[in-house]
Amino acid sequence: MTRFLYNQEMSLVVVGSVAYDGVETPHGRVERMLGGAATYIALSSSYFTITRIVAVVGDDFADEDTRLLESRGIDLEGLERVPGKTFFWAGKYSDDMNDRETLQTDLNVFADFDPKIPPSYRSSPYLLLGNIQPALQRSVRAQMNGLRLAGGDTMNYWIRDFRDDLAATIREWDFLLINDSEARLLSGHENLRKAANAILDMGPHTLVIKRGEYGAMLFRRDSYFIVPGYLLEDVFDPTGAGDCFAGGFIGYLAEKGFDLEGDHIGRGELSRAVIYGSVMGSFCCERFGVERFRSLTRDEIDARFEEFRRFTSF
Amino acid sequence: MTRFLYNQEMSLVVVGSVAYDGVETPHGRVERMLGGAATYIALSSSYFTITRIVAVVGDDFADEDTRLLESRGIDLEGLERVPGKTFFWAGKYSDDMNDRETLQTDLNVFADFDPKIPPSYRSSPYLLLGNIQPALQRSVRAQMNGLRLAGGDTMNYWIRDFRDDLAATIREWDFLLINDSEARLLSGHENLRKAANAILDMGPHTLVIKRGEYGAMLFRRDSYFIVPGYLLEDVFDPTGAGDCFAGGFIGYLAEKGFDLEGDHIGRGELSRAVIYGSVMGSFCCERFGVERFRSLTRDEIDARFEEFRRFTSF
Repeated sequence: MTRFLYNQEMSLVVVGSVAYDGVETPHGRVERMLGGAATYIALSSSYFTITRIVAVVGDDFADEDTRLLESRGIDLEGLERVPGKTFFWAGKYSDDMNDRETLQTDLNVFADFDPKIPPSYRSSPYLLLGNIQPALQRSVRAQMNGLRLAGGDTMNYWIRDFRDDLAATIREWDFLLINDSEARLLSGHENLRKAANAILDMGPHTLVIKRGEYGAMLFRRDSYFIVPGYLLEDVFDPTGAGDCFAGGFIGYLAEKGFDLEGDHIGRGELSRAVIYGSVMGSFCCERFGVERFRSLTRDEIDARFEEFRRFTSF
Repeated sequence: MTRFLYNQEMSLVVVGSVAYDGVETPHGRVERMLGGAATYIALSSSYFTITRIVAVVGDDFADEDTRLLESRGIDLEGLERVPGKTFFWAGKYSDDMNDRETLQTDLNVFADFDPKIPPSYRSSPYLLLGNIQPALQRSVRAQMNGLRLAGGDTMNYWIRDFRDDLAATIREWDFLLINDSEARLLSGHENLRKAANAILDMGPHTLVIKRGEYGAMLFRRDSYFIVPGYLLEDVFDPTGAGDCFAGGFIGYLAEKGFDLEGDHIGRGELSRAVIYGSVMGSFCCERFGVERFRSLTRDEIDARFEEFRRFTSF
């Protein structure tokens, strides 16, 4: 049994979906496997800091999946179990894996998800809100006290149909993590530099734009940082890569005890958080679903961080 | 009049098209302006080393266009003038400018282009072969003596329909500069890491893959380097950006007097050449056609090089 010696004061609360996924890529097909944004975020952040999940699953949720999360030291007190079936999503990737088609979405018990934060979680200083309804994201944030750093993800559906709600939600966030098409949709600008400036006007003082295989960008008022994507020899399954990025990003900042509002966090630390995010996203793609996290070690993570330094420095 | 104080021994010969272009982008439309791969490569490389053009134009080629090239110190002894019209190309870019449609291609005098290297050019140590018929590229290389570094570009048409010819040509090159879709087509591999390894087996010991707005990658047997693209606020016209990249890449290596075969060139210098290539490509997009080169200074180029360092280091 691995021992986890994290500083409890640096713990991270992750809210989002815990699900089952059916995935088809050019490398193969899995009918049903553990998935969901909160699952990927937490598995990823668990390499950096103590991680506490808030999610809901049905009575079909398998013990072996609980055990995987526990084996990574993840706190499951906030994982609610209710009668019914766990959220199920199925999708199929294009040949180059840059697009995917959703084949099935059964919200099941996730349809009535009303995140309740256990009292033991409320003083955690770090909060990552996965892609759920903006009003729920807001209610979670309101249940926390003593936050040092809060932010999260969203998606096209909320940007298009819940714009005011989303605006009220992200206004309170320190950082927003979205992909390039979402940034364009949210800001109304095709150019990402203009899009970033418009989004920073909406509240978050830090914006991370994920670009899939092309890497990621970080924007603040006075600076920006761009990293290319890691060049894998084989991408088996990109599912969860963006969530693993988020887990690595916030996990590293939590591990270091950073506070984005403070003066003691500079562009350098945020850039390194983006690199750790990129590292975790790249590992995620190496196997189907969460498989890579069964064997991944912190040493491998740190070695790939150094590899990023080698192939990007000049 | 600007004075050019380059080392004549480091001169670069550029072979390719000098043309007129009609271009439409979301920012506007120009019916006819100076263009062509050799034009863009030479304008770009002229900031780094003495540059000698080998190309053909018709009797409609305007004096003001000759003067622009001369104002950058470019040697036009190899610019052949023949009766007839200069190569004309017209194209229209998509809204996001990642795709373009060719509206018109009139080869005119370029159809019979048979590059003749003036005796004064033959001992130049650097050679950049723009995208022309592979057999012509080979004949040019054979006319040179004392080459330290030779390489060039190609395109889908030659890869598909002149594969053996192209293979015989690039086998003799030090470096190949192509875009990602061309690398996939040439190698038969979708994955760029695999594609790069396959292409390095074909002859060149250095491969640069251009990715448009996403930047560029450099591959050698034992190392690789990736840089993201520069984030422009406005891309007016991407025409010629890839050629300006090539001019900055080879221009910098020529300025420094490098020899890729030698032991004295490391990954660091090649990476910096890729950055100078990226810098020149980014400036090219800031105005229509070659307009940016009327005012661009070496100080601006070096300042943007430092900006690349700032937004990519961590």
